Order: sequence, then C-alpha cells, then structure tokens
Amino acid sequence: MKTINIGLLGCGTVGTGVAKLLIENQSLITSRIGAVLVLKRVADIDINRDRGIQFDKGVFTTDPEEIISDPDIRIVIELIGGKGIAKDLILKAIDNGKQIVTANKALLADCGTLIFDAAKKKGVDLAFEAGVAGCIPIIKTLRESMAADRIKSITGILNGTCNYILSKCTESGITFEDALKEAQAKGFAEADPTLDVEGIDTAHKLAILTSIAYGTEIDLDQVYVEGISNITPVDIECAKFFGCKIKLLAISKCYGDTIEARVHPAMVPCDNILASVGGSMNAVQISGEAVGDMVLYGHGAGMMPTANAVLSDTIDLARNILNNSGQRIPFLSYQHNHVRHISVLPIEKISTCYYFRFSVHDRAGVLAKISSILGNYNISLKSVNQKGERQNGSITIVMTTHLAEESNVRQALQEISNLDIVTSSPVLIRIEGK
Amino acid sequence: MKTINIGLLGCGTVGTGVAKLLIENQSLITSRIGAVLVLKRVADIDINRDRGIQFDKGVFTTDPEEIISDPDIRIVIELIGGKGIAKDLILKAIDNGKQIVTANKALLADCGTLIFDAAKKKGVDLAFEAGVAGCIPIIKTLRESMAADRIKSITGILNGTCNYILSKCTESGITFEDALKEAQAKGFAEADPTLDVEGIDTAHKLAILTSIAYGTEIDLDQVYVEGISNITPVDIECAKFFGCKIKLLAISKCYGDTIEARVHPAMVPCDNILASVGGSMNAVQISGEAVGDMVLYGHGAGMMPTANAVLSDTIDLARNILNNSGQRIPFLSYQHNHVRHISVLPIEKISTCYYFRFSVHDRAGVLAKISSILGNYNISLKSVNQKGERQNGSITIVMTTHLAEESNVRQALQEISNLDIVTSSPVLIRIEGK
Repeated sequence: MKTINIGLLGCGTVGTGVAKLLIENQSLITSRIGAVLVLKRVADIDINRDRGIQFDKGVFTTDPEEIISDPDIRIVIELIGGKGIAKDLILKAIDNGKQIVTANKALLADCGTLIFDAAKKKGVDLAFEAGVAGCIPIIKTLRESMAADRIKSITGILNGTCNYILSKCTESGITFEDALKEAQAKGFAEADPTLDVEGIDTAHKLAILTSIAYGTEIDLDQVYVEGISNITPVDIECAKFFGCKIKLLAISKCYGDTIEARVHPAMVPCDNILASVGGSMNAVQISGEAVGDMVLYGHGAGMMPTANAVLSDTIDLARNILNNSGQRIPFLSYQHNHVRHISVLPIEKISTCYYFRFSVHDRAGVLAKISSILGNYNISLKSVNQKGERQNGSITIVMTTHLAEESNVRQALQEISNLDIVTSSPVLIRIEGK
Repeated sequence: MKTINIGLLGCGTVGTGVAKLLIENQSLITSRIGAVLVLKRVADIDINRDRGIQFDKGVFTTDPEEIISDPDIRIVIELIGGKGIAKDLILKAIDNGKQIVTANKALLADCGTLIFDAAKKKGVDLAFEAGVAGCIPIIKTLRESMAADRIKSITGILNGTCNYILSKCTESGITFEDALKEAQAKGFAEADPTLDVEGIDTAHKLAILTSIAYGTEIDLDQVYVEGISNITPVDIECAKFFGCKIKLLAISKCYGDTIEARVHPAMVPCDNILASVGGSMNAVQISGEAVGDMVLYGHGAGMMPTANAVLSDTIDLARNILNNSGQRIPFLSYQHNHVRHISVLPIEKISTCYYFRFSVHDRAGVLAKISSILGNYNISLKSVNQKGERQNGSITIVMTTHLAEESNVRQALQEISNLDIVTSSPVLIRIEGK
C-alpha cells in the first residue's frame, strides 16, 4: 500500500487535533482512501508539552525548515497562523514542491494573490477549508457542488465568539461586556478579542468566500466592517419585540458587475433558519439561481472540528497525489484567466431594511419632526413604537423601515441627531433575511 | 479547449433542468472547469414537447441506445427513474465505458451492489448526489469532508412531500388528508403518494447514506419504516404542547458492530435546528466524533435544485476525465475490501424517548393502572397530562417518557390496550433530537 508523508507546522490546539486524527484514525482513513497517511514530522517551539497523543519518536523538531525541505514529505500543513513566519514557510514549501494545507484566513485574505500565484506556477495544490467556518464544508460546496450554478449571495454567521456573545445577551439579557467576560472565561474569546468582536475575522472569511463565489479578487479594505461591541440590552430586547434575533452577519451579494461585501450586526427574523444558530455555532447560507437557498451549519471553531476540516483537505490532496491529478480544481473556483475585477459597492449604496432607536424629549410634535425628515429622504416606515417608560424627561422611540438606501438613512439620521429634541445619538441596526 | 460530450437519458422535469443548466450556464461552467461540457444527445419518448430551451438540431432521439453506444459521449446522465429500463441502460452504458450520473435512489437502494460492482470492474465512475436530498451536497460531504472522521449518526428530513404535509398540518391544524390534497394541488405530491407518505422513498435514501457513512451494505428490508398517514391533528397539537414539531425522520446510528436504521414520524424539540426545517425543505444532520453536529439544509427536490446536484456530479466526473483520475473516490466512501457487514438492530432493540396518547374512560384509578403497567416494563414517565375535555365519557391522556426500550414499550402498550378502560388503540410517537 502507498504511503504519503505529512509534515505539520505548528502544534497548538488545532495542530494537536490534526495529529490526533492522523494517528488515531489512521486505519479508518486508510480504509477510505486506500493509502496510508503518515505524520512524519511536527515542528513547534514547544516540543516537550504532553499533548495526550502517542507520537512516534523523533517526530518533533523546533526547526520548520527540516519539514519543508524533507524530500519524503509530500503535504505540509501550516497551522502557525499570522502573516509573518507562516507566509515565508508556505512560500518556501511551495517552492520545494510541497502540497499545502492551511487554516490561515488572515494570510489568505491579505496575501492570497501572491500565495496562489506561487502555488499555481509551481503546480502544487493549496487547500484552506479550515480557514472559513471550521468544519463546515463551505469551500468545497462553493467550488464543487455549486460549480454549475450562478451564486447570488452568501450570508454567514462566521465567528463563534460573536455568536456566543450575542446568544448569551439574547438569552440572559446581560450586557456585551459581561457576555464577553463569560466567553473569555469559557475559552470562546481571546484575551484581546478585537479581531473577533470588531468583525475583522469575519471580514477575512467573507473576503475569501466572496472571491470563490463570484470569481473576483477582493481587497479586504473594500469590505464594510462593523462589530458587535455597541450592541446594548435594549436593542436585543427590541429585536425580540420585532420577532428577531441580533446576529453578526457576513453578507455578500453579486449583481453581475458590482458586488456588496459587508459585515455588521443585523436583526434576523426568528423564522429564518439563521436565527436558530445559537451558541458558538456557525452557519452559511448560499443562494444560487438553481439551488435557491441552502444552509450549512456546524462548529466554526474548536480543536477537533477544525482539525477535521484540515484533514478533509489533506485527504483531497492525498487523492490528487495518488491519482496524479494535482490542481484538479482551481484554488478560487474559477480558472485563472476567468477571474475578473468586480467593483464593490460602497456601503452608502446598499439598500436594506432598518431598525432605528431614538432617545428624545417627551414633547408633542417629536414624532412628526423625525418622520418628516425620514420621509424627505424617501425612507418609508413599517412600524413606530415607544419602548419603556419616560426617564429624565426622555423617551425611547423605535422604528423599522421598508427597503431604504443607506446613504439616505445616514443623511436622515445625521439631520435628526442635530434636532434639539434628540438627547443622544440615534442607533441603527440593519434588518436582514426576511 | 477540451470538450466533453454528455448524453441525457430522460428529459422530464429534472432532465429539462439539467439541459437548461448545461446549455444556459455553459460559459460559466467552462470558466470554472476549463473545458466545455456539451449536451450532445437527449433521449426521451416525447421529443416534440416545448421545454423552453434552445436545443441544437438533432439532439433529440427516442432511442437511448444511440446515446449509450455513441463513442463520442463520455458521460451518460440517467434520469428515467425506476428499476426497469433505467437499470438495463445503466449497465449497458457502463459496459460501453461511459461515466454514469444518476438520481435513481430506488435503483441504487435496491440493486446498488450489482451496479457498483459492474462500474468498479469496468473502471468507470458512477455518481448519485441527486439521489438523496436534492441539491444538498450530503454524499460529497460524507465521502469527502468527513473522510477522516468517525460518523456516529445521521438524522435527516429527506422527503419534501412529507415535510410539506407535516408543516401544513402544524401551521393550519388541518388533517393529513387535507394537507395531502393541498400538496397534490401544488405539485409537491404525486397522484399516488404512497412511496412518499409511507416513508419508502425516505428509506431508500437512508439506506444509501447509511452505507456510505459506516462502510456497510444495507438491505432495504432491514430499515424500519413507518409513514405519516396516521398522524392526527391532536398529536400535532400535543407536539406543540410539549414544545416540539412532528417531522418524518430518517435515523441511522452506528455502535461499531451494530447499526440502527429507521424511518418514522418523531417529535423534535423546537430548539433543535431540524424543527426549523419547514415547507418542502430537506435537512440532514451528521454527527461525527470530530465534527460534532453538522446540518446541511436545502431544497430536497424540484427541477433546478435537483438539476444542480446532477450537474455537480457531472462536473466531478468531467474533472476526473480531464485529469485521468477515474474512480478517485470509492462510490460508497470505503475501499471495496473494507466494506463490512454490520448487523441492523431490529426496531424492538432501540431505545429512545416516547410520547403516548391514550383514550380512556373517565374513571378513578385509570392513571394508576396505566402507569403501573408502564412501570412494570421499566418505562419511566417524564410527564402526564389530560388533554381537552371529556367526550362521550372518554378522556385523552398524553404522556412522555424518559429513555425506554422499544420492546418494553410495545409490550406495555399491548397490555394497556387490553384494559377495559381503554377506548381505542394507544398512539406512540418517538421523541428524537433532544
């Protein structure tokens, strides 16, 4: 039976999961692919820590170069993360003719073109299913199962930390700050949670999915990003009142010559299946002309789910090695000469439904003033409600709108916030998924 | 640029969708796979009907032999259905070295071994994603994305007709018969709905998924099957009372040396994502040791969603042709010599939670008698409630249980139904997905 040797760069949480699957499920994998995958070398700075797995002697090294230059190693799995040493090692490994598996979405979102070009030129494969939504096979589905369909939009809950925090806020009525602390205590959030809670990690993932879905290169700067740190219990409460849940959504839509790509909190109606995605779970909805709506749901992070995604890529590449069918599928779904530039609409140009919350003095004529400004900007109201009781002479009014253009909404809210009857900045949350 | 010629056997609803995608999305497909897929011939008894597509002249024939013997055709798509002529044509096409795509789950569930063996021997590929759950990429996910994981269970809503009927019953409180009529009027149910509503179609699909998930051959006769035609408005109402929805579930579980494989209506708690699967939609939950729970949701039938699944297979086979990598993945996920016999547990041996409904005379001591029998059979009650008012001296009592063994449940219900206080046969619905 044929053997394919694998080298692992980085043996932290996910790396340990990968080693565990490779070692403990070796015979299971063999029974499916008809070849033996062997974890030949592992590089990590910490070679002594007990990882709870029986490694063969001499597997560990602190020097990643030993792996990427080992002629017996065919597949290199990069799980170091970040854009520094990981990038150099991937490029060198490509240059040495290794097949690459990585979960490094930050690197791919930022330097994807450089890395894909290098791999293409060298004729090696590069797979990254684990980079987006953990074990959910979203990359494979977009690249393979949707290859005959025109993809219209992608709507995803792609960050488990944010979804855990928002789910906690919804269930318990606690503040963002308290939910974040709880997430940190449970290991669902990093000590510095900025990348997650400010939507940046989600934007990385959306950029990758958008490229694959529509065959375009997308600059991370063009993705509109708004995090969840400003979401308050009163907005969570109002979402419930409107039959919605607040989720951090990654949305991209293709209109042929233009696309939308945006990350922001949104109210999602409870009868939309995305509203059922609780805790730290992820989900991606793909809408295609032929398939209609399709949703994939699963663990978006965690040791073993992410390790499984890494292994599914590894097995794909192993099958390509066994069949001599490298680069069987283009990295970004489209043939190189068919990747085109599609311009991203600025956020001001999108149209959606909105929720507004205004704090205003409790005086006659307040509602007339606000609604008249909204009307001037072509914003049609669906509902208007006073929430709670008068506090210090101020009341809270919440409104939902029909479809409106964001530029109009922004100008209207600016004008409203200048009124002397308004006691604090208006709050806006988009409503999606009706 | 390379061209791959395709022949289509059967141009009904799904066949027309396949032709539409192949013709109208030809350049999109080319931009993804780097080769041109050409629909060279179509065989159907009705060659004159306007299908709303611009076919090339001379594409149609009434003689399928012209397609399966055409040396220029590499991939044959079989969409005739059934176990008669479809089987003969597939076997002949295999013998002629054609790659096969089919959506014929009845044929594969029944004669899969014969057909897979023929394909294996001849060295051709045979793909059948469209056979289970329409556009949902469940076969690809099990065979490829889960190839490193040990699959523990599959729970699916695999029949759109049943889900439409049960959803209608739940929303509108109408009877099964009225919901079926509505489904027939809307084209969601056949004139003879037996295959769907009695769970047989679901069993075909479950047999296929079970084989792939655990690497076993499964005889259709070993799948326990119970349809939805006995579900009444009162049970739907009781399900709501217990915070559940009734769904027709396909369930298979692997315990290493034994498996469960069963199709029956079940109460699913509303906080389980499967309960959110409404209308004619399908969903499959896969539980794996590494991935935990994963759910794929989408259209399980219909012209274009099913056509997309057929095309995704066709593109996979085209990629194999272009890369000379035929049989890259074993049809049933496991290498031939690793497919083993795993015995299916008889339904009496399963353990789950139950809902019972009893119609009894409204007399003192009734509850004591029933609960004493249940206790004798080791069935522990979770809740007991009287539903509705006394009618003709009879009342309705509903109960839910903790985990109990089916054989005990059956014996207990038999004993209870013999009591003179019981006015009609007890009703049992399993509770799943807690």
